[in-house]
Amino acid sequence: MKQLNLYAENDFSEKAFKKLLVHDSPYFKILNFNFQPGQELPVHSHDIEGQLSLVILEGEGEFLGEGDSTLPAKAGDVVISDIAEPHGLRAKTNLRLLVTIAPPI
Amino acid sequence: MKQLNLYAENDFSEKAFKKLLVHDSPYFKILNFNFQPGQELPVHSHDIEGQLSLVILEGEGEFLGEGDSTLPAKAGDVVISDIAEPHGLRAKTNLRLLVTIAPPI
Repeated sequence: MKQLNLYAENDFSEKAFKKLLVHDSPYFKILNFNFQPGQELPVHSHDIEGQLSLVILEGEGEFLGEGDSTLPAKAGDVVISDIAEPHGLRAKTNLRLLVTIAPPI
Repeated sequence: MKQLNLYAENDFSEKAFKKLLVHDSPYFKILNFNFQPGQELPVHSHDIEGQLSLVILEGEGEFLGEGDSTLPAKAGDVVISDIAEPHGLRAKTNLRLLVTIAPPI
């Protein structure tokens, strides 16, 4: 078993969102992104098989999708998306996001 | 995209921990377990390939491992385990756990 605490290992920066590689294996890749208000992970997609989960651990913002579509994002929200489907996130408050990608990119 | 909120969709019960199937696909399976103090997911393992992540969204408790081994568990903790490795969890407070299994069992 491998253990770490996201609150201890990753913080926030005014310059840009902060990214932490939590885990990478042949089975899945896990990343933590911390955003300050206004920071965003721009909409993107990869033309490959697989899915990802976006979990909001803390804070509020918007999930970004195809075109200009948005969905409200708040603590406890889970979004599942194909890797090939456009996805992104914009923060309105300090926001902690956990992303799990399977299989790993 | 598929969206749900864990706080809205799953609550707690005095009788036993409450389990919510968040997602099941060929890529991964995602489950949410909510525990009241003293409730536990007993140590178990499956003799198959793959890994799982255990993420504590809220609360405190102990991760359970092989034999009588334990590790403190609190909000923001992430544990990665092989599916074949013994793993479990015991809650000391109300505790929300998110489990992602890849590939799905």
